[in-house]
Amino acid sequence: MIKVVSKHYVKEDKVDEFIEYAKRMVEATVKEEGCISYGLFQDVKDQKILTFIEEWEDMESLEKHKTTEHVTRIVPILRSLDEKPGDLNIYKQL
Amino acid sequence: MIKVVSKHYVKEDKVDEFIEYAKRMVEATVKEEGCISYGLFQDVKDQKILTFIEEWEDMESLEKHKTTEHVTRIVPILRSLDEKPGDLNIYKQL
Repeated sequence: MIKVVSKHYVKEDKVDEFIEYAKRMVEATVKEEGCISYGLFQDVKDQKILTFIEEWEDMESLEKHKTTEHVTRIVPILRSLDEKPGDLNIYKQL
Repeated sequence: MIKVVSKHYVKEDKVDEFIEYAKRMVEATVKEEGCISYGLFQDVKDQKILTFIEEWEDMESLEKHKTTEHVTRIVPILRSLDEKPGDLNIYKQL
């Protein structure tokens, strides 16, 4: 099992717009093969921090995800709403 | 439901020691009331990045966790093995 944490620092006035597009990503991604869970989370102290926490069956499913229509279309939009580059980590469980 | 991501940047020569103590934290914490899941994860590209990904029923359980014997004893040890301060985020699901 692969866990992904993708943290975005969103422009203050773009938070609502980010959430709207991010929810479309969630909706499309949870239907993908190999996706165990994929959710959107907001920091309780800083609403500009919006993070996808994801569980994938294996690296192959994650790689396939990156080539989907919804990722190639929506990720550039999400990035344009960020105030600075985010943090992306791919993890294995110990 | 509350999700916590606690990311540590561990000193290169202290990674094994960190994992040893972190596993004791996992073992004790999963038994706590209100803990849905609590796992230790390692970045697949950078083994010095070690992260706890946690799910708690509510803020109350998380607050109680911070006062447990294993947290007050083991967290200072884990921090002493870090090369720089880590990132701690507490999230709500959207």
